[in-house]
Amino acid sequence: MSPINPPLATKLGGLKSSAIRDLLELTTREEVISLAGGLPDAELMPRERLVAAADAALSGSAVLQYTGSRGWPPLRDVLRRRESVKLGRAVGLEEVFVTHGSQQALSLLAEVLLDPGALVVVEDPAYVGALQVFRAAGARIVAVPLDSEGMRLDVLKELLVRGERPTVVHTVSNFHNPGGVTMSPPRRRELAELADTYGFWVIEDDPYGELWFDRPSPDPVATYSRNVIRLSSASKILAPALRVGWMVAQERICRAVELLKQGADLCGSALTHQIAADLLTDETWLTGHVEAVRSAYGDRAKALVHAVRTRFGDRVTCTDAAGGMFVWADFTDGTDTDRLLPRALEHGVAFVPGSAFAVDTDYSHSMRMCFTTSDAATLAEAIDRLARAAE
Amino acid sequence: MSPINPPLATKLGGLKSSAIRDLLELTTREEVISLAGGLPDAELMPRERLVAAADAALSGSAVLQYTGSRGWPPLRDVLRRRESVKLGRAVGLEEVFVTHGSQQALSLLAEVLLDPGALVVVEDPAYVGALQVFRAAGARIVAVPLDSEGMRLDVLKELLVRGERPTVVHTVSNFHNPGGVTMSPPRRRELAELADTYGFWVIEDDPYGELWFDRPSPDPVATYSRNVIRLSSASKILAPALRVGWMVAQERICRAVELLKQGADLCGSALTHQIAADLLTDETWLTGHVEAVRSAYGDRAKALVHAVRTRFGDRVTCTDAAGGMFVWADFTDGTDTDRLLPRALEHGVAFVPGSAFAVDTDYSHSMRMCFTTSDAATLAEAIDRLARAAE
Repeated sequence: MSPINPPLATKLGGLKSSAIRDLLELTTREEVISLAGGLPDAELMPRERLVAAADAALSGSAVLQYTGSRGWPPLRDVLRRRESVKLGRAVGLEEVFVTHGSQQALSLLAEVLLDPGALVVVEDPAYVGALQVFRAAGARIVAVPLDSEGMRLDVLKELLVRGERPTVVHTVSNFHNPGGVTMSPPRRRELAELADTYGFWVIEDDPYGELWFDRPSPDPVATYSRNVIRLSSASKILAPALRVGWMVAQERICRAVELLKQGADLCGSALTHQIAADLLTDETWLTGHVEAVRSAYGDRAKALVHAVRTRFGDRVTCTDAAGGMFVWADFTDGTDTDRLLPRALEHGVAFVPGSAFAVDTDYSHSMRMCFTTSDAATLAEAIDRLARAAE
Repeated sequence: MSPINPPLATKLGGLKSSAIRDLLELTTREEVISLAGGLPDAELMPRERLVAAADAALSGSAVLQYTGSRGWPPLRDVLRRRESVKLGRAVGLEEVFVTHGSQQALSLLAEVLLDPGALVVVEDPAYVGALQVFRAAGARIVAVPLDSEGMRLDVLKELLVRGERPTVVHTVSNFHNPGGVTMSPPRRRELAELADTYGFWVIEDDPYGELWFDRPSPDPVATYSRNVIRLSSASKILAPALRVGWMVAQERICRAVELLKQGADLCGSALTHQIAADLLTDETWLTGHVEAVRSAYGDRAKALVHAVRTRFGDRVTCTDAAGGMFVWADFTDGTDTDRLLPRALEHGVAFVPGSAFAVDTDYSHSMRMCFTTSDAATLAEAIDRLARAAE
């Protein structure tokens, strides 16, 4: 048997497995209430509607074949119509590209846009799936902290004034994973203006925008500039198993991504594309379905935040959970969440320590909690256990 | 608006769109009989069995969620059992990895195994999907010609004796695309021995092995060495829309591919994985189904070869079409197939000229013809038209 090739050995050493996935392995014991996951609730996925759509798709004639690399045309068309409403302009079909989950869009975009050493600005704490892709592309990564209005543009502007020239700025604009916050409308407009002025691309990563609880998400950053590449996904509103994500971008970007998609996996699944198109086209049903998901998640989010505030008082501050899937919490009393985790597991509750998402900032007193897959009573019990672990 | 980033411009220029895909655009006019495609026949895909499997999958409880990066475990298990039979040894679950079509396996393997400048040996004529991936990885590509027994190992050995040290040797071992030939058993054993001696990886790309017409395909190259990474796919026997390919490889390779898969697209579709597992597990049904596909393709292949030999006589030699989807033909009278194509289109027939697959060898008198999607009478008519165009 030959020795491991040097490139393989190098690449094995250079990549880290997703911290969240490794943690999930530890927290799936039945007696543990896990707030550590990041999964939508399978019970809320529209099983019967999916059966009907699968039957309809399979009764057609062309749906089992290879499809174009940009995605099944009727799916691209319904996405075009929906994104036109969101962006307040007529989005062209040539600007819409379907990917194998929005993670694939991130990965192909990194390949298209970044050469080794290119500067990428991410948010701190960061979405680890993006961080992984940008690191693998050999990018130089600089992190800009979040506050309650999203990415701190004062810090970004300092970087720009110092002469830093990012190729890409990545933001999770709505209900940040893990930070829980939403970028404010004035910052959205300003970020877009900075992109135009300094000639960088913004990747607006928006899987959670439809999951607002009290008021609709603000207009996308992409409303304000064509230098914003907008990503979204059916995973959080329909089902991850469809593996349907999409990108809205300038046609030249779509063309470049198309060439890479052909090498990466040729094309998506005409079957899951047709199912997704069916559900996304059925507007009356979809509106009701998404409202039901919002309502369930909203109740859970409020229960979690209420429990944290009641049980911890001033010892913890946490985000309001106005949408999405996550609450971000900071211990104000010096509790170290890396150290808290093993004690929490002993008490039967799991979360993800802030350090898992930290780039440049110290988040050792922070944690991410996911509220999607437990009911209100279970979430209250989880916070009781956490409080006992933290005593 | 900012100018195109230099990396984007560079990468747009450096990549070529798949020649086959561009050609397909030209040959879909209704009056043209296309032998240019490379698609399995949608009419032979098991629509009703797929509906039943989709219904069964959607009646479960976990199938709509994200799944592990290595694939849905029961699918990996049935693949493990099937590959154990093929390889004549107990294949471990940790050696089986499901990819988004086998193209994704090629793409992730190139990322794992190749650094820019690494030497990759391909067959000439080459499978263009592999060529595209290896070129994008910055590999140095050397092509070894095929003959009627597959890759010419005498040429490969000359390279090795000259001191060339490939990192990867890629082969389509059964019913080559585009070359039509199958590697003989003695060459399979010898290629595996060379891999062990010289410490290179063989990627045995085998999407067509089940589609034999007269006698079963020989034992895989992977039978003879653990340095052979074996790829296959459900696309040609079930349906491309499942996007289910798989890799059988050493566990360390699977681990490295897993890290990259997380960044590339997180995971496959639990829905299409469950459907594929259902169909692959149903052995009695599957045997009958694959026999029906073989029988239909075998009849078409023989009709095409018969028509070529009858119509062209000594002016054309072509492969026997013992399986797979393609016949490779060489004009012996100096006909240039690049020049023939526009005349053939005027006469209402399309094929792919050999130049589309050529790496180092001159295939300007050759062509690839796909027999899967036309009946025997249509194939005979296609060859009549081609003969008139070639007059």
